[in-house]
Amino acid sequence: MIFLTRRATFAAAHYYWNDGWSEEKNREIFGKCANRNGHGHNYTLEVTVAGEPNAVTGFVVDLKWLKDVMEREVLAAFDHRHLNHEVPEFAKTVPTTENIAIAAWRRLEPTINSTGGAKLSRVRVYETPEIFAEYRGEA
Amino acid sequence: MIFLTRRATFAAAHYYWNDGWSEEKNREIFGKCANRNGHGHNYTLEVTVAGEPNAVTGFVVDLKWLKDVMEREVLAAFDHRHLNHEVPEFAKTVPTTENIAIAAWRRLEPTINSTGGAKLSRVRVYETPEIFAEYRGEA
Amino acid sequence: MIFLTRRATFAAAHYYWNDGWSEEKNREIFGKCANRNGHGHNYTLEVTVAGEPNAVTGFVVDLKWLKDVMEREVLAAFDHRHLNHEVPEFAKTVPTTENIAIAAWRRLEPTINSTGGAKLSRVRVYETPEIFAEYRGEA
Amino acid sequence: MIFLTRRATFAAAHYYWNDGWSEEKNREIFGKCANRNGHGHNYTLEVTVAGEPNAVTGFVVDLKWLKDVMEREVLAAFDHRHLNHEVPEFAKTVPTTENIAIAAWRRLEPTINSTGGAKLSRVRVYETPEIFAEYRGEA
Amino acid sequence: MIFLTRRATFAAAHYYWNDGWSEEKNREIFGKCANRNGHGHNYTLEVTVAGEPNAVTGFVVDLKWLKDVMEREVLAAFDHRHLNHEVPEFAKTVPTTENIAIAAWRRLEPTINSTGGAKLSRVRVYETPEIFAEYRGEA
Amino acid sequence: MIFLTRRATFAAAHYYWNDGWSEEKNREIFGKCANRNGHGHNYTLEVTVAGEPNAVTGFVVDLKWLKDVMEREVLAAFDHRHLNHEVPEFAKTVPTTENIAIAAWRRLEPTINSTGGAKLSRVRVYETPEIFAEYRGEA
Repeated sequence: MIFLTRRATFAAAHYYWNDGWSEEKNREIFGKCANRNGHGHNYTLEVTVAGEPNAVTGFVVDLKWLKDVMEREVLAAFDHRHLNHEVPEFAKTVPTTENIAIAAWRRLEPTINSTGGAKLSRVRVYETPEIFAEYRGEA
Repeated sequence: MIFLTRRATFAAAHYYWNDGWSEEKNREIFGKCANRNGHGHNYTLEVTVAGEPNAVTGFVVDLKWLKDVMEREVLAAFDHRHLNHEVPEFAKTVPTTENIAIAAWRRLEPTINSTGGAKLSRVRVYETPEIFAEYRGEA
Repeated sequence: MIFLTRRATFAAAHYYWNDGWSEEKNREIFGKCANRNGHGHNYTLEVTVAGEPNAVTGFVVDLKWLKDVMEREVLAAFDHRHLNHEVPEFAKTVPTTENIAIAAWRRLEPTINSTGGAKLSRVRVYETPEIFAEYRGEA
Repeated sequence: MIFLTRRATFAAAHYYWNDGWSEEKNREIFGKCANRNGHGHNYTLEVTVAGEPNAVTGFVVDLKWLKDVMEREVLAAFDHRHLNHEVPEFAKTVPTTENIAIAAWRRLEPTINSTGGAKLSRVRVYETPEIFAEYRGEA
Repeated sequence: MIFLTRRATFAAAHYYWNDGWSEEKNREIFGKCANRNGHGHNYTLEVTVAGEPNAVTGFVVDLKWLKDVMEREVLAAFDHRHLNHEVPEFAKTVPTTENIAIAAWRRLEPTINSTGGAKLSRVRVYETPEIFAEYRGEA
Repeated sequence: MIFLTRRATFAAAHYYWNDGWSEEKNREIFGKCANRNGHGHNYTLEVTVAGEPNAVTGFVVDLKWLKDVMEREVLAAFDHRHLNHEVPEFAKTVPTTENIAIAAWRRLEPTINSTGGAKLSRVRVYETPEIFAEYRGEA
């Protein structure tokens, strides 16, 4: 089994806010992130697939195909977007790094796992070089 | 003469838009950056001062002081902010990396150059690791 | 389950020495690291916690809280310190990257695991970008 | 158990080609990588060993020894080489990142696992900072 | 005046060889780089243009245009190529980092300086993160 | 004219202290750096030479020679050393990043400038990725 990883970046805006809380409570819990004008990040999306290298090509998956899948399933929706206002997953869910990683997994898994070969193994999202969240699917 | 540099990062949202143009013209010139919901970046601000090291301390400037100046003059205004909506310099000026570098220089220069010792030499702003603008003041 | 990671850096001095050995034996085993004047590194501490994102906040843990815990439990004791002379764990134990990772885990685990939610999952310490040690706790 | 990792880099040329396919088929599957003049990369080899730190030295393994093993077993054969023409593993196997990781593991495992202490745990090969393959051995 | 910089990467093979020298002399002067099978690198091309930001767009140059120019003038010829065999500048000239920087400048300058606005100011080529050459044009 | 740069790293301990000041004054000016047990850093030394590429070799200087000069003149004295206790330049001078850059320049210049070809152009020393000092010689 080989774990093959590809990274891509996207630039997005977001903020943290809970409509059920007061302005004060939002500021207390979310700090500077509660500014509803939004701020933003250069996110890094890191996708790992696991499988056996094909005996002829030496590929676990074709990295050009993986790049296309990442762009079509995730970057087309997240890059140069305001996550709270333009991405359905975050209409009612706070776009934390944790939740972005889960959303990216759910967008990628159907396509990647439909090939019959390699399986999605891990999704990492870096909000900055100092902070990242990793999701490996349920169970 | 020694050139002493300190880096700091800030996370901000922005978009590119010219009110004098149509939606189509804005899209044509500014591409994905014309999305008025905004997107964002982890910016790096890199400030260089030039001067002679003090014979006793070995400092061109005190780096803790420089950090405080950068935080007070630039990061307090730019970090976790929407540049178009919350930073006065960008009320009518497009917040490109070029213009952010000029704005940061103008915010830093009065304090740094008032000390009688080192002078502000260069301001660099990285929008991503692949794109940066540098300003060295007028003339 | 989400694995959420935060990095921080600290600058410390250390050397490798075993009092039970001769100078020659120390030099043979520890090489340049046996210089008892000490040398130093910019260490990176990378702390991973594992848990479910809170349904309201989207947080596995509050990253500001995690930063404070890392600063209070580890950086306050290690940063700008000589590990051999000022950190109790290394009074009789060689401050290798391996042992620093274990010491950091033991300092972090009681606080992090007392919250009832997320658990400490992994501690990594980078001595340089080329060398790092990872500890996942006992068993 | 501690996981101790060391990185090293090597510069090599390679291309992707299957003799059983036409030029067109090779171009279709391998794209720009099918250029038989070769192109190249700065690869990063990242080797992780797992074991208990020695009570006296604090070492899982001696990192100077690990560096020597990596240089003798892998870099001496791969660095400043054309992988297709000079490395036996790739005489008939496409030198993808996946296959390079497997080849490096097989070169390293006999020496590392013969010491009776730490065991080879993981080999990662980065072709670029955006693409890497990881192998953890069979089973 | 603002200095605006964009980076791009390319993967290429090369070797160092002087037909007027013996094998021994080539090995003595060029070391491992004299292996005529070639080896390779992930090069980084860093292009800086200097000019005034446009009052309306805030652009020194349109970064999408600069990206296209870099791809068309340099990367299309250098990326996934063997520099000695496929790039005319290196048919008789050794493809050192120094000479690659000069070649890239000469390919870029006519297009960039023809716009009447910003001028090419600096070209840097990184062979590895540890080695780079910079060219600022003649005189 | 080409500017050719090579980087190397060294690990050293240091502290900031002025014997003419009280403990309190040292703490006030130098903060955590005044801890006389010392702390340390992974420094990066970045050396730039300027000259014309040789018509036959394509070299401004031989990078293997430059590496040897950097190791012999600077790293042999600074690496795995306590700068205050073991490096003569810092017996009475505070080993700030500024002063380390000047000391490195003075150690490198005689050898590099004696070759009759390229000249030392710039020395940069990074104390961390966020702080660096640059010296270009006198006048």
